[in-house]
Amino acid sequence: MVSIQANRLQSRLEALATIGRDPGGGVSRFPYSAAHTESVRTVAAWMADAGLQAGCDPVGNLIGVMRGTGGGSTILLGSHLDSVPHGGMFDGALGVLGGVEVAQALREAGVSLRHDLAVVGFADEEGYAYGTGTLASRCALGDVPRARFSALRGRDGRTLAEAVAAFAPGLPSTALPARASAYLELHIEQGPVLNRTGQRAAAVEAITGIARSRLVLDGEANHAGTTPMALRRDALVGAAEVILAVKTLADASAARAVGTVGAISVTPGATNVVPGRAELTIELRSPDTDRLHDLCRRTVDAIREIALRCGLTPQRSDWDVRAPVPMDGGIIETFRAAIGDAGHEPVTLPSWAGHDAAIMAPHVPTGMLFVPSLGGISHSPNEWTAWEDAALGADVLLRTVMRLDAHASLPVHTLPVVSS
Amino acid sequence: MVSIQANRLQSRLEALATIGRDPGGGVSRFPYSAAHTESVRTVAAWMADAGLQAGCDPVGNLIGVMRGTGGGSTILLGSHLDSVPHGGMFDGALGVLGGVEVAQALREAGVSLRHDLAVVGFADEEGYAYGTGTLASRCALGDVPRARFSALRGRDGRTLAEAVAAFAPGLPSTALPARASAYLELHIEQGPVLNRTGQRAAAVEAITGIARSRLVLDGEANHAGTTPMALRRDALVGAAEVILAVKTLADASAARAVGTVGAISVTPGATNVVPGRAELTIELRSPDTDRLHDLCRRTVDAIREIALRCGLTPQRSDWDVRAPVPMDGGIIETFRAAIGDAGHEPVTLPSWAGHDAAIMAPHVPTGMLFVPSLGGISHSPNEWTAWEDAALGADVLLRTVMRLDAHASLPVHTLPVVSS
Repeated sequence: MVSIQANRLQSRLEALATIGRDPGGGVSRFPYSAAHTESVRTVAAWMADAGLQAGCDPVGNLIGVMRGTGGGSTILLGSHLDSVPHGGMFDGALGVLGGVEVAQALREAGVSLRHDLAVVGFADEEGYAYGTGTLASRCALGDVPRARFSALRGRDGRTLAEAVAAFAPGLPSTALPARASAYLELHIEQGPVLNRTGQRAAAVEAITGIARSRLVLDGEANHAGTTPMALRRDALVGAAEVILAVKTLADASAARAVGTVGAISVTPGATNVVPGRAELTIELRSPDTDRLHDLCRRTVDAIREIALRCGLTPQRSDWDVRAPVPMDGGIIETFRAAIGDAGHEPVTLPSWAGHDAAIMAPHVPTGMLFVPSLGGISHSPNEWTAWEDAALGADVLLRTVMRLDAHASLPVHTLPVVSS
Repeated sequence: MVSIQANRLQSRLEALATIGRDPGGGVSRFPYSAAHTESVRTVAAWMADAGLQAGCDPVGNLIGVMRGTGGGSTILLGSHLDSVPHGGMFDGALGVLGGVEVAQALREAGVSLRHDLAVVGFADEEGYAYGTGTLASRCALGDVPRARFSALRGRDGRTLAEAVAAFAPGLPSTALPARASAYLELHIEQGPVLNRTGQRAAAVEAITGIARSRLVLDGEANHAGTTPMALRRDALVGAAEVILAVKTLADASAARAVGTVGAISVTPGATNVVPGRAELTIELRSPDTDRLHDLCRRTVDAIREIALRCGLTPQRSDWDVRAPVPMDGGIIETFRAAIGDAGHEPVTLPSWAGHDAAIMAPHVPTGMLFVPSLGGISHSPNEWTAWEDAALGADVLLRTVMRLDAHASLPVHTLPVVSS
């Protein structure tokens, strides 16, 4: 009987949370920092304990491998080791240590897989240090050109190339396995859905698409007393209409989209002056490709209508679009079956945030497994997931690995791995 | 036949506009600056030319007096000599030089008034230097307590007391006349109404009341992806509704009110975070006392309803209210008659901006006369009033003075003048 040890998973998550603990609250563990180095050494030791051979790839991703009997292809498990400033102790860490726990459970039960098993701790997913998310998985797969990779400058003043060169956890050099059949990422939901419904685990159907644009509305700054209402070209009134239009469009999506105006500024910004210019950000998200495009189009139409009616000139940056990334259908079904095996209702949810899984998915069949976040809170010292839910995540991950491994004939995919 | 000289008025306005001319455009003539000192000396010389004895009162207001035959009470004419940064050449200047022109026209025609005639150039009406408008007229009438007067610190780093002590245009000390029967202020409209209707001059019925408040809406900052629309407490969405409610309420006033949200900021203000807090200013104006109170009440009701519906907590500062100031009914009628004498349609308008006339009105029968502002523009280098309109203003002012002076029995009011 193979089974994960909930206590061990808990104590390792608690120990990892002490590495990079921030005096101001939560965990601040940034890539290539001393805390990162310590976390890699610590997790590498746990990997060894679990029978995984640990090493680091050229961008500092921690990779532990356990050979299977088939010798052909790898099932990858993983997530990231970095955090946002004052982040929580589950975001990223659960997927890495859950993977280590799966390996250790297999080893302790004397079960050998046909596939190789690899557990990955990506170095930089949050994007805090270099301003761009999922950086380390993109570097590992060559999605970031080498020149750009080298030149990116971090908040500590060093380029990424300099930081990586100085990063010395004392582990062998390795690379992501070049032949793989699956990438599975266990993660906290970071949203409130499972916590509110009381459901315990969900297979992710797709990672949301995100479209962003910056809008400038130009009207006419004017005296807030002497300018009659009917003659105003008030940029902030137009911006208010845009804010409500974005909300109305997202509201109408039956929970398949969200829309946010997160930042706004007005010029000149005085109590007694009609605003002449308003600048705002618009962000639309949907896991559905067509819906995201439709939302962008309707938002543009709304802006045009509002600007015309309010006498404003709109200037909008092109939509910066990250397309939705569907998860692999077979893996979704395997996750659902494994959730059922564990005695819980199978659920499927979108992921409304980005993850390394979105980088892996174009290259290898990929799936994500969510467990509940208390109150939906993440990126906060108050982030919390019940220990039984964390353990359930590792348990479902284990069951999913064993179900996948039972298929001798999983297709083998070649990853465009950057190995030096 | 008494008549003003349009060419002289124009050339003086043009000459005054060179004093404090800003290399960046327009006129920047701040109280107690070198430009102010020069403007006081220059206007004092024109006053002498017009038969007015010029001096400065304890806060640097320029006052020129021409004695009448009755020796009892004064008709005051005036406006202010200071400007906003990059201001126009008519705002304030027209009322002062129009008054000088009236005196000079009377002198040149050999006409003696029964009343004394005084022309005032207030030192600080715009409030740019010390952050509070109509400062010099309020100081002159004791509305600003001496201690506060002394301590106010200007943008040049000096206290008002220090600036006034150092202000030395070389004129005799004087004070506003303590016994007066009228204060008449000629001014550009600073709004677009006359320019749009083609009307040439208007008597002001009342100076608008102004109510201001700062509103903070607290919701919950949250992830812009993982937080479903239905669970958001988006402070900016609430703010957008408040902005549109203020507009809707003002729109419904049939041009008897305006409402403006001129400044807004949100926290944390990131593209991918639902705003947790929004802070905005609300300004309501109406010349009608009851309407202004009603607007304040309806705005508060709207904020309460919006906050409740959006799950936000509102904190609002108390309304800072300047009540509407009605102009004197007899003077309004005299202005209208004088406009008719000059061959134009008598019009009555509210003043949507504050003026020194609002400070004088509680103490002495007060009236204002508006001439058109091209495009309604003021506080800008593009401020413009046609020369014929500027001259018409001075002509109507002269006719009004003569009509008022014809009443031997104008009531005499005692002003609470600060004379040292």
